[in-house]
Amino acid sequence: MDLNADLGEGFGIWRLGDDDALLNLVTSANVACGFHGGDPPTMRRVCAAAVQRGVAIGAQVGYRDLAGFGRRHIGYAFAELRDEIIYQLGALDAFCRVFRGRVRYLKPHGALYHAAARDESQAAAVVAAVGEYDHELPVLCAPGSMLAQLAVGAGLRVVAEGFADRGYLPNGQLVPRTAFGALVTDPEEVAARAVRMATERTVVAVDGSVIPCPVESICLHGDSPGAVAAAELVRAALIDAGVTPTPFAR
Amino acid sequence: MDLNADLGEGFGIWRLGDDDALLNLVTSANVACGFHGGDPPTMRRVCAAAVQRGVAIGAQVGYRDLAGFGRRHIGYAFAELRDEIIYQLGALDAFCRVFRGRVRYLKPHGALYHAAARDESQAAAVVAAVGEYDHELPVLCAPGSMLAQLAVGAGLRVVAEGFADRGYLPNGQLVPRTAFGALVTDPEEVAARAVRMATERTVVAVDGSVIPCPVESICLHGDSPGAVAAAELVRAALIDAGVTPTPFAR
Amino acid sequence: MDLNADLGEGFGIWRLGDDDALLNLVTSANVACGFHGGDPPTMRRVCAAAVQRGVAIGAQVGYRDLAGFGRRHIGYAFAELRDEIIYQLGALDAFCRVFRGRVRYLKPHGALYHAAARDESQAAAVVAAVGEYDHELPVLCAPGSMLAQLAVGAGLRVVAEGFADRGYLPNGQLVPRTAFGALVTDPEEVAARAVRMATERTVVAVDGSVIPCPVESICLHGDSPGAVAAAELVRAALIDAGVTPTPFAR
Amino acid sequence: MDLNADLGEGFGIWRLGDDDALLNLVTSANVACGFHGGDPPTMRRVCAAAVQRGVAIGAQVGYRDLAGFGRRHIGYAFAELRDEIIYQLGALDAFCRVFRGRVRYLKPHGALYHAAARDESQAAAVVAAVGEYDHELPVLCAPGSMLAQLAVGAGLRVVAEGFADRGYLPNGQLVPRTAFGALVTDPEEVAARAVRMATERTVVAVDGSVIPCPVESICLHGDSPGAVAAAELVRAALIDAGVTPTPFAR
Repeated sequence: MDLNADLGEGFGIWRLGDDDALLNLVTSANVACGFHGGDPPTMRRVCAAAVQRGVAIGAQVGYRDLAGFGRRHIGYAFAELRDEIIYQLGALDAFCRVFRGRVRYLKPHGALYHAAARDESQAAAVVAAVGEYDHELPVLCAPGSMLAQLAVGAGLRVVAEGFADRGYLPNGQLVPRTAFGALVTDPEEVAARAVRMATERTVVAVDGSVIPCPVESICLHGDSPGAVAAAELVRAALIDAGVTPTPFAR
Repeated sequence: MDLNADLGEGFGIWRLGDDDALLNLVTSANVACGFHGGDPPTMRRVCAAAVQRGVAIGAQVGYRDLAGFGRRHIGYAFAELRDEIIYQLGALDAFCRVFRGRVRYLKPHGALYHAAARDESQAAAVVAAVGEYDHELPVLCAPGSMLAQLAVGAGLRVVAEGFADRGYLPNGQLVPRTAFGALVTDPEEVAARAVRMATERTVVAVDGSVIPCPVESICLHGDSPGAVAAAELVRAALIDAGVTPTPFAR
Repeated sequence: MDLNADLGEGFGIWRLGDDDALLNLVTSANVACGFHGGDPPTMRRVCAAAVQRGVAIGAQVGYRDLAGFGRRHIGYAFAELRDEIIYQLGALDAFCRVFRGRVRYLKPHGALYHAAARDESQAAAVVAAVGEYDHELPVLCAPGSMLAQLAVGAGLRVVAEGFADRGYLPNGQLVPRTAFGALVTDPEEVAARAVRMATERTVVAVDGSVIPCPVESICLHGDSPGAVAAAELVRAALIDAGVTPTPFAR
Repeated sequence: MDLNADLGEGFGIWRLGDDDALLNLVTSANVACGFHGGDPPTMRRVCAAAVQRGVAIGAQVGYRDLAGFGRRHIGYAFAELRDEIIYQLGALDAFCRVFRGRVRYLKPHGALYHAAARDESQAAAVVAAVGEYDHELPVLCAPGSMLAQLAVGAGLRVVAEGFADRGYLPNGQLVPRTAFGALVTDPEEVAARAVRMATERTVVAVDGSVIPCPVESICLHGDSPGAVAAAELVRAALIDAGVTPTPFAR
């Protein structure tokens, strides 16, 4: 099982999350590429540390929206979005190259993640960008999403991720953030859910039923208070259960 | 002899210069990388056209200053500047890659061009960026500049450029823009100077003396009225004189 | 009848439209405030020229999106949008103040214009911004739009604008841009339609019926080729018909 | 004696310093205006809280450089800088107006503070901006600086500030940051120096001599760990010494 988290999301003087602590816990680092967060010195620092620790580097591509941290939907035209993603892929790959690594996968950030899960044009832009830049690059996204479907259709490798700290509906979808049961806040329970995802490929839905959860990576959230401690607990629980966290990308 | 010009310097809805016309005249395109000008769709369009025409693509890297078009000096720290250049190199290379090309050289833009010609820290940042990103990448710059010296010292290939439309002092330096004789405005004279540079590797200085001008590329200016016509004249005159414009980078 | 046009939409080195020519034709200048276009020196220049000519200055507020020129929808939260509009209002008012003028009205730009015509939250953000900044400030917008309704409900003055170069449906709505009859391209016909709007407050719809068009301002488009000539024709035709173009805002 | 501190320097999702805590300690808030830091919702929040507490609001104007937090020198032309400052003044004033307040003074930030202290063109740009926007607005800056001189010459009110946590040379200048004695790190000593500045208008220089320190405001630094505790100590010590912190601006 792979563990991924968003990293390198500071900008200029501003910091967000504890990159160093998380780099010791995850196996895949979703590195911000400068459009919603991240800047060249931060990208360099995170890439250097990730390569050193054997953590796989993924391009966490986002909308061009620093003020909104890429969390506001933007009505991009297909070609604009495709090209902005290619730009970000290349920029991050440059820092990987400096440290003899390379970008191993792509994961959309924030509003782009959500748009690409539903909107055909935006999902197609992500798929086109990956296809044009490097057809071998896996796409890390939600299972069953529009992005996952189009990526598979285009012959790309799709890696599904799960959220141990989010509630699931019986149909396998996430409980909407505003609904009861959206968040699992007890760290011990989060860790137990991660172990279940890793060992049984299942999750307990909000109605108590056990449903399939066929994911290859678990997403750890890094920018809330207590995030690092919670991630440590997940990692420790996995190892206790005999699961060695391993990058999904070679 | 190579002919280079700045291209792809629009941003969003705004245009600058006539990219299509210039792409038919130059052998090397200095493509803006999004920091002082240029944006992903423009980079894509210019890269596609350049690859199609056999024009070499260079990274025209600049300061992060859209409002000032990269023409205002910024007091970057060494590492910040190095990393912003690496970022731009990678971003442009991504579009080259889409069209089965790659970035063939680097040329600093505007205030960075001038700073790197004199300021050791900024010149060193350019050299470090190229060295880390791709040690084989030539640096296109002014002969005798600080950048040229440091690049040679670091084992990089330096390609010197000349300006057929600028006046030269007897010592080989350009006449300062505010001084008499700074600009050569007669297109016929500009073309004749280009031919002299290409065939004799000399230029007539403001005092009438003939001085060495050991350049491998001539810079054509693209964003003034009459720029395209002037560039056409230079190209035609070179060909008339038996000089075939050829990219310096393979 | 008032004539309004978008002005000051360049940024940095880039220009858009012919501000000087249009300032001699319009009675109200929608001045870009730096978020989708425009920059401080441009705002100053346009404000100086507008005050000198007795042209009313309006805040052409837009999304924070230089790369998309404010033409892409952005999913702003209410408070963020309200505050970005207040910011732009104050910034433009500062330049008006320098020349002993002041912002006389507000007109949303591009995607914000369209969103505020339909989306209650974005329309309410515009209304809240105007209400908080200066309750006396008229809002220039499409008649019948959500923005017009909410603004009237909040006690703001609404000024409706018409488009002499756009087709109208029999119900008074504009013909969608992609449908037949969306654009009126013959300059003479545009001028005749403007005269009809000014003198009879009617417009000939695409089906040939004459419908009411109760507008106080006609929008002239400034950034297409031939825009200035077309605007000159409209102004001349109005004067010929005995209509003196006059700002709606005192 | 006035106490001033930089506030509202976050951007988007990113925070910097503890605005709420400092607003209870200072009498003048230097509010960032969106160019080096700060954004509309932050400006609104800080202005609302400042007006409520009777804290004077100053425009902390800076270079257009989010990535460098306004700390890198930029070679602005006079008119560009003047206009960018006018823009920021107006933008902040808009939020003051919402809460029935107004901008009470201007203080340059970071590299602009340092440039305006020495560079005649940049100092003149600050002076011109204040003179054009509101001739009554005081300028908060270092005593004896180029900015102070030009502002006085232009008939502006200059308010000198001192730094209780910085070392002073016998000539009244600050000890350069890289030299021995640049920083006073003991909070008790900082508080004692503040009291001396407030009650005797003197400071103990690095050589032990007591020199005049004719300042009307003391600058508290807000963005380092322990900053709030240190500021609390200064304020408490002043009150203990019978000095009531009071805004210099009415």
